Amino acid sequence: MKRFEKHIFVCENKRPEGHPKGCCADKNSIAVRASFKDRLKELGLSTKIRSNSAGCLDACEHGVSVVVYPEQIWYGGVTVDDVEEIIQSHILKNLPIERLKIKDAKFNKDEKIV
Amino acid sequence: MKRFEKHIFVCENKRPEGHPKGCCADKNSIAVRASFKDRLKELGLSTKIRSNSAGCLDACEHGVSVVVYPEQIWYGGVTVDDVEEIIQSHILKNLPIERLKIKDAKFNKDEKIV
Repeated sequence: MKRFEKHIFVCENKRPEGHPKGCCADKNSIAVRASFKDRLKELGLSTKIRSNSAGCLDACEHGVSVVVYPEQIWYGGVTVDDVEEIIQSHILKNLPIERLKIKDAKFNKDEKIV
Repeated sequence: MKRFEKHIFVCENKRPEGHPKGCCADKNSIAVRASFKDRLKELGLSTKIRSNSAGCLDACEHGVSVVVYPEQIWYGGVTVDDVEEIIQSHILKNLPIERLKIKDAKFNKDEKIV
């Protein structure tokens, strides 16, 4: 038995103002995480599905960055307005939101990942 | 292709002094996360395996709490001295460390998880 059926990590990393990478916290990620948390609680899902704060997920250029486990689906540019769709489609029906997914090619552009 | 082969989340949550739940930060979790990060870098693994800061993982009583995805293996009471063993056995050989695992029964004691 797993502790959580799905575990949603939202980057809440905050960098100093003017940092070239920017940061998810400046793009409203705190509210995104809170929105996941509140909505999951309203739906009675918070014991099975967790919205978790995370530090830098190393996908800064795609922020607000979110990764959903165990399937490791990555989303970029997530807003509060996307939360309901992610919950209803991905979390409840296992249908990830294609338009929000970070494409594999984007991860490879710096050639860090083989 | 997945972004990371394994993603290690270490709770770095800090609660006010005297809080009844305690917190992982007060049990040296910051150093545990840094130790994972440094060692993975030394081993040339940091592009494939990430040591990530996490907020509260809701396993406070077992802290320092660590969860490894995609397999969702939970560890409690992790110290800096455990990091090498977790990397060598679990991360590199897919053999989780039984003595550090949080047992399923422990998660159920508050009856929050069905």
